[in-house]
Amino acid sequence: MKIKMDDREQGMEIIMELSGFEVEKCRMNVGDYSFGNVLIERKSIDDFCSSILDGRMENQIEVMKKELWKYGKLCFLIVVGNIKDRKVNINENCILGKCVSLILKHNIKLLWCEDDFQFGYLLKNIYEKVSDKDEM
Amino acid sequence: MKIKMDDREQGMEIIMELSGFEVEKCRMNVGDYSFGNVLIERKSIDDFCSSILDGRMENQIEVMKKELWKYGKLCFLIVVGNIKDRKVNINENCILGKCVSLILKHNIKLLWCEDDFQFGYLLKNIYEKVSDKDEM
Repeated sequence: MKIKMDDREQGMEIIMELSGFEVEKCRMNVGDYSFGNVLIERKSIDDFCSSILDGRMENQIEVMKKELWKYGKLCFLIVVGNIKDRKVNINENCILGKCVSLILKHNIKLLWCEDDFQFGYLLKNIYEKVSDKDEM
Repeated sequence: MKIKMDDREQGMEIIMELSGFEVEKCRMNVGDYSFGNVLIERKSIDDFCSSILDGRMENQIEVMKKELWKYGKLCFLIVVGNIKDRKVNINENCILGKCVSLILKHNIKLLWCEDDFQFGYLLKNIYEKVSDKDEM
């Protein structure tokens, strides 16, 4: 299983290796991970919260939607961590409202996990399920 | 905001009230909550895990997909709780694989939250965002 990983992703090589991926690091303009027609943006809970507050999330959504329209990319957003552990000052209703908006209004494939090991499992499962369909 | 709630849902009246809903209890054949064309299945993390193991999840997915095809229902599955707190003996990879399958293969709208208060926020946000679109 080969995967492209943004070269700014820190400390994730070992997780990728443990999950069975062969990693190619490169500078990615959109998303943090990619294989076949899949594009994955990984956000820690605090990064997710900050990006809601400062509007980056909205920009990233637009970029991901464009990737879908233009190139038929399957775009995933995976949030890593628990809402209750956030250090960013934002209320729960605001975070959960954004999640509803992501899947209902923007049709982004949103997944949650609690740590980077679970993130590795998610990637592996996405890879396997997409390969089953498309034979990458 | 009016919502139908399955009469077997326990201890959720107060959450619904706090979230601003007027509850009508009834016996629901599919899902646990409904309003307009929205159908919501609520699962605690342990119930989610058990239903993966004993195959109930697969049946419920088929029922929800049928509601979408036949009646155009927007079907949500909301899991409440953390994977790490589960008491059911099932590995993380299996749970996360099912989540990927739910959104990738079955196109179910999957949301996570950590407690029933957050569940209330999710319902309120879904209600508001669907009403914006459809004017229920």
